[in-house]
Amino acid sequence: MSLLLTGIAELTTNDPSRGDGLGDPGDALLGIVRDAALVVSADGVVEWVGPAREAPDADSRRDLGGRAVIPGFVDSHSHLVFAGDRSAEFAARMTGTPYDGGGIAVSVAATRAASDDELRALVAARVAEMRSQGTTTVEIKSGYGLTLEDELRSLRIARDFTPHTTFLGAHVVPREYASDRAAYVDLVTGPMLDAVVADGPTSLAESIDVFCEPHSAHAFDGDEARAVLEAGRAAGLAIRVHGNQLGHGPGVRLACELGARSVDHCTFLADADVEALVAARGTTVATLLPGVEFSTRSPYPDARALIDAGVDVALASDCNPGTCYSSSIPFAIALAVREMGMTPAEALHAATAVSARSLGLDRRIAPGQAAELAVLDAPSHLHLAYRAGVPIVRALDL
Amino acid sequence: MSLLLTGIAELTTNDPSRGDGLGDPGDALLGIVRDAALVVSADGVVEWVGPAREAPDADSRRDLGGRAVIPGFVDSHSHLVFAGDRSAEFAARMTGTPYDGGGIAVSVAATRAASDDELRALVAARVAEMRSQGTTTVEIKSGYGLTLEDELRSLRIARDFTPHTTFLGAHVVPREYASDRAAYVDLVTGPMLDAVVADGPTSLAESIDVFCEPHSAHAFDGDEARAVLEAGRAAGLAIRVHGNQLGHGPGVRLACELGARSVDHCTFLADADVEALVAARGTTVATLLPGVEFSTRSPYPDARALIDAGVDVALASDCNPGTCYSSSIPFAIALAVREMGMTPAEALHAATAVSARSLGLDRRIAPGQAAELAVLDAPSHLHLAYRAGVPIVRALDL
Ligand SMILES: [Zn+2]
Ligand SMILES: [Zn+2]
Repeated sequence: MSLLLTGIAELTTNDPSRGDGLGDPGDALLGIVRDAALVVSADGVVEWVGPAREAPDADSRRDLGGRAVIPGFVDSHSHLVFAGDRSAEFAARMTGTPYDGGGIAVSVAATRAASDDELRALVAARVAEMRSQGTTTVEIKSGYGLTLEDELRSLRIARDFTPHTTFLGAHVVPREYASDRAAYVDLVTGPMLDAVVADGPTSLAESIDVFCEPHSAHAFDGDEARAVLEAGRAAGLAIRVHGNQLGHGPGVRLACELGARSVDHCTFLADADVEALVAARGTTVATLLPGVEFSTRSPYPDARALIDAGVDVALASDCNPGTCYSSSIPFAIALAVREMGMTPAEALHAATAVSARSLGLDRRIAPGQAAELAVLDAPSHLHLAYRAGVPIVRALDL
Repeated sequence: MSLLLTGIAELTTNDPSRGDGLGDPGDALLGIVRDAALVVSADGVVEWVGPAREAPDADSRRDLGGRAVIPGFVDSHSHLVFAGDRSAEFAARMTGTPYDGGGIAVSVAATRAASDDELRALVAARVAEMRSQGTTTVEIKSGYGLTLEDELRSLRIARDFTPHTTFLGAHVVPREYASDRAAYVDLVTGPMLDAVVADGPTSLAESIDVFCEPHSAHAFDGDEARAVLEAGRAAGLAIRVHGNQLGHGPGVRLACELGARSVDHCTFLADADVEALVAARGTTVATLLPGVEFSTRSPYPDARALIDAGVDVALASDCNPGTCYSSSIPFAIALAVREMGMTPAEALHAATAVSARSLGLDRRIAPGQAAELAVLDAPSHLHLAYRAGVPIVRALDL
């Protein structure tokens, strides 16, 4: 049973060869087809894309009523496996009220204390919430277990929801290792990593990640991060890095040197960091997470300068209980346009095509591709930023 | 058939006498009751409020599963009666691209050209969209007709959805009067206003409003605004004012002098403006519209300074096609907390109790009040800002 989708006022294909050449440069970047149609096979593969007037027949047909269709968002950076509530910590930070709530340790304790079923239900609710906002592919990191068993458990639960799982044992140094950081790095790179890849390199985790941040006493410096990443790479995992979020540091250059798929945050960049990202173009993506800057009242990274320099820029949510409990990619797009100088087209491309590439995926709408689609209650992708805060986009259930 | 609502982890009553005295000052401002219950009568009136353990019996019962309940948002400033699409103008503004699209005249032309049924369907969709985001009461202005017939038509359509309609014939000077502004003011204060109140002072409009902005060639200066507002007041309408959005000007002081219920925007304030607002406390509310600053990349008003000075501060959306096509009060709350120094409690109070007062309403959850409620997919109102951009709140259908 093939399905013909009609009534698509504007289709973003992410295939520049598709663009009609009219309109602005954004239309070309997004490969926009107006008054478009799509044929999807019974098993969810795109069979045909083009102008509605040229559409072939199909077994059934559905009219989307003049809506815009886009590739489903690829949220390439999230921390969904956690329990506990840190809203009071957020409120204290926003109001400048002293608060000694324990920060990330609160999430670690609550996550360790939660049952598998509880954790799985929390992740399921968050993935569903993302899907209701247009996200059809999500990367999920561990990192609130910080013991061998709890990291494995986090990855197993994440794997129930996505193949794009990331081992983040090196999220922070847990309290119990505060006086012996080296022992924790040894645990992450030794027994934990061994267990993660025990059934094959990507049986539980697709990637390894580290919070490389010399400005935080709980995070990892350049040498520690290198040890983690090199061990992960040797074990067959792809590399992702949290870098340069809180201040200048070695994270971005390390990521580029080691061939990471993505280095994320990139809030504080020196010229040498930008040069490294430009040189790593095609291999390493700079993933910006503006929800974090919103939720921590930090300065935003300069996406405009990165794009103009030639860096591949992706957008993701960083959905996590501490620094950004927003799962909304439309919100990240609105912030990218308002605060980081991205055009609406660049922001949408960053949250689909580029974030997909950082997961090794191709997120074009083209024959042979999976029909991972989202639909807007609006006639154009421009409404994603124009209608900031309004839930106008959702994953399209076929 | 009375209904007992249980499973309310946190109830915001807006009744300071209800607060349990524990927790932070925000809890007192919001009159928060934890582990609460509510009894609502068959005709939608609150009959009982209190701790769940003291709840009386009722004919039926519904468990909200540990969610937070708040008073429905009161969006006291919106422009929902319009047709046409100005997303390309928004994109051009955000990217610094020259764009001569005609601005507000585009909306005026499209609105005049739309049929009654088309306009009514557009308003219905926008009101439903608001309700899906927790807004249970909305004020709607005319102002995209700018002829006697089209202003009346806009008010009639708005009245189908809310009693809180506002005559904004003085939105801008339409093109056809550009060379004779005085004639347009005469039309607004004469034949238009006469027609608006022909069937009684508030038969079509509850209030009159004017865009007082000497910095815009299309808007109205202090003298013109005074003429409009005094005529409206004499005809029996309440007064609202768009003031001090684009720069310093007479709008705020004029509003306070004339006893306006609200002066809206308040982006650029001199000391004398703040003093006037303080003196007008209890009569004139300062309604901040941070979605506009977000969508126009303007500086945000200093809500913290206003509140600290003793001004009554409300929040609303200003949902309109030009400067802010966001209908989301949760988004306005998140911006108020991130950008304007309001606490989460102040922001929620501003978008419910204070905005209600500017419409002459009491928005407490208390016996005898209408059960206009919203429910969060979260245990606390703090999540409204904590989960920025995520659609976690909706009007509660009883
Ligand atoms: Zn992260
Ligand atoms: Zn307005």
